[in-house]
Amino acid sequence: MAGRSNGASPMDLSSPSAANSGGVDKGVDFANYFCTYAFLYHQKEMLSDRVRMDAYFNSVFQNKHHFHNKVVLDVGTGSGILAIWSAQAGARKVYAVEATKMADHARQLVEANGVMDVVEVIEGSIEDVDLPEKVDVIISEWMGYFLLRESMFDSVICARDRWLKPTGVMYPSHARMWIAPIRSGLGDQKMNDFESAMNDWRNFVADTDTNYGVNMNVLTKAYREENQKYFLKTSLWNNLHPNQMVGTPAIIKEMDCLTATIEEIREVTANFSLGINVDRTRLSGFAGWFDVHFRGSSQNPAMHEIELNTAPSSEDCTHWGQQVFLLHPPPRVNEGDAVIVSFSMRRSKENHRLMDVEFTYELQQSTGKRLPPVTSKFSIE
Amino acid sequence: MAGRSNGASPMDLSSPSAANSGGVDKGVDFANYFCTYAFLYHQKEMLSDRVRMDAYFNSVFQNKHHFHNKVVLDVGTGSGILAIWSAQAGARKVYAVEATKMADHARQLVEANGVMDVVEVIEGSIEDVDLPEKVDVIISEWMGYFLLRESMFDSVICARDRWLKPTGVMYPSHARMWIAPIRSGLGDQKMNDFESAMNDWRNFVADTDTNYGVNMNVLTKAYREENQKYFLKTSLWNNLHPNQMVGTPAIIKEMDCLTATIEEIREVTANFSLGINVDRTRLSGFAGWFDVHFRGSSQNPAMHEIELNTAPSSEDCTHWGQQVFLLHPPPRVNEGDAVIVSFSMRRSKENHRLMDVEFTYELQQSTGKRLPPVTSKFSIE
Repeated sequence: MAGRSNGASPMDLSSPSAANSGGVDKGVDFANYFCTYAFLYHQKEMLSDRVRMDAYFNSVFQNKHHFHNKVVLDVGTGSGILAIWSAQAGARKVYAVEATKMADHARQLVEANGVMDVVEVIEGSIEDVDLPEKVDVIISEWMGYFLLRESMFDSVICARDRWLKPTGVMYPSHARMWIAPIRSGLGDQKMNDFESAMNDWRNFVADTDTNYGVNMNVLTKAYREENQKYFLKTSLWNNLHPNQMVGTPAIIKEMDCLTATIEEIREVTANFSLGINVDRTRLSGFAGWFDVHFRGSSQNPAMHEIELNTAPSSEDCTHWGQQVFLLHPPPRVNEGDAVIVSFSMRRSKENHRLMDVEFTYELQQSTGKRLPPVTSKFSIE
Repeated sequence: MAGRSNGASPMDLSSPSAANSGGVDKGVDFANYFCTYAFLYHQKEMLSDRVRMDAYFNSVFQNKHHFHNKVVLDVGTGSGILAIWSAQAGARKVYAVEATKMADHARQLVEANGVMDVVEVIEGSIEDVDLPEKVDVIISEWMGYFLLRESMFDSVICARDRWLKPTGVMYPSHARMWIAPIRSGLGDQKMNDFESAMNDWRNFVADTDTNYGVNMNVLTKAYREENQKYFLKTSLWNNLHPNQMVGTPAIIKEMDCLTATIEEIREVTANFSLGINVDRTRLSGFAGWFDVHFRGSSQNPAMHEIELNTAPSSEDCTHWGQQVFLLHPPPRVNEGDAVIVSFSMRRSKENHRLMDVEFTYELQQSTGKRLPPVTSKFSIE
């Protein structure tokens, strides 16, 4: 699942009480994160994503052997769609857990589609609910922008460790994060926006001093930092065209959903090289996206492996888009150059559902010359 | 102070813990409300509002007798501007209380403007902080859209009851809420948006049934209600032109800031009549706004009374705009008609900083004929 758009998400700042207690304040987590999922408008947006819907639909109905007469847990059922499909594919019992009041709508949908004997909708956090039995399948659509935004996989891990039978399978079974070098007009746009904001600030400081006798120049540094973060150092949602990739993408993280731990996703680090295959262009920045696969497990494999891919595509686009990290200034690159990257992504201290990202990159030119490393930090908001 | 725009404010839904405890969860209140005020961008927006700035500036500097050698409390100091002006107007001591980290910037500004011997910035909630003495003046810019959105005046009342000397004065001293009948193109726009959304939903239901075997029609009623609320039953921010008023505005609430109680603002009710003075037009809806005055107290009056007015104006506009409540369908009205209105505004159960509004109106035509009453409910989000 992914929130609607960067910058407009209600996921701002920290709760004083959470900071004090060292944990996540549930009321604040609800106000900051869960609340958008209680809106039908938001559910519909995800349900209208054909790529997403096709992948899950096909993964279930082309692998009925995993569902027929089995017990299924749907983590974060939302409208109930995955639970209903599981029942239609022959599940004996489906537990559909949903933290928000959307659970009421899921119940209506379950009943209207004649599967209320099979699907039990439970309103609550998966961390808190108790099921009467362990399950054969955990199905969940938990992916956020660039896979891990929203940190929902933590809840899936919790569900797996509590409720999945030793022979059980995860839907999806595998996930990967990708990064590619890109060119984009957004970089210049954002730099213009930033410079406009600073021009506007300078006029504001002059006017406020002249008209109101208060000099605000001491705040210029903080204002600049706030606007740099907003315009230049926050990743953007975008639907990239494959033509915008100026080199080969790299897999920077691979995850087996059956064995992944919270430790390995709490901080994602990777070192990789991206080859540039477009001549005389600019490296405007990096794009990040994910794919997931439905392969079952090695002891209980899928009959038909399904892929859900969110890479830049000329035909398909998903509500996830890609995450774009813009470089200022964008270095010139040529065919044959390589970008040597050291990447890290950690959860934001203020809000564990948002990410702090750092790219350190060195340009290795085709001549052999290596430019000094540059570090660029970003927030995924 | 007013939030930036309707619908994009981070003030969504309730906290489960607050609902359980019967009070306001501080962490949730912070996540929902206070956090936007920690951004310089937001402070700058308010500081750039010339009408607002002029009114407060003039009220202070044209009434120095209230400030000279006196003790002042600035409730919700933000950037510190009112506190700095109070010091520049001759105050002996100013306590500037701010709940967010904006307090750090206020301290910088106080120092940079040479008033740190007078102004003490205190980070905290006015409900919690302790001052070493009572004060002669409480100055605060607490007004939200249509005066009471954000319910910040509760904090000013608390400050007054705890810290204002019996001879003290409030800046501003008085506040009024106004309503006028208006015409606007927004009504048709919003109705079109709503109908588009419902058309889109119908297609979505058909497609989801055809392609994915799940019938979502049972959710149509809830989807309609959600979209009605969003498009038709949520008040809008707008900057109205006086030409859009089709009748005489009415004062629906008057408040003396020295004596007002939380009870009288928790629920605002009014019965009033609006005369229509434009012929053959439509009553698209109602506009709500406020004004405040700086008059001092009866025992300690201002030397120059200042007004801050947010009514529709062809010259001035403020960041508050007006709140627009649209009627669907908009009744036809003629010159000489009257609209008899019964109005009520209460705090939303889910979030005490947002409002539930109800208009019951009857059209009294100039012929004498009286049409049956119509009730329309709105949320101020």
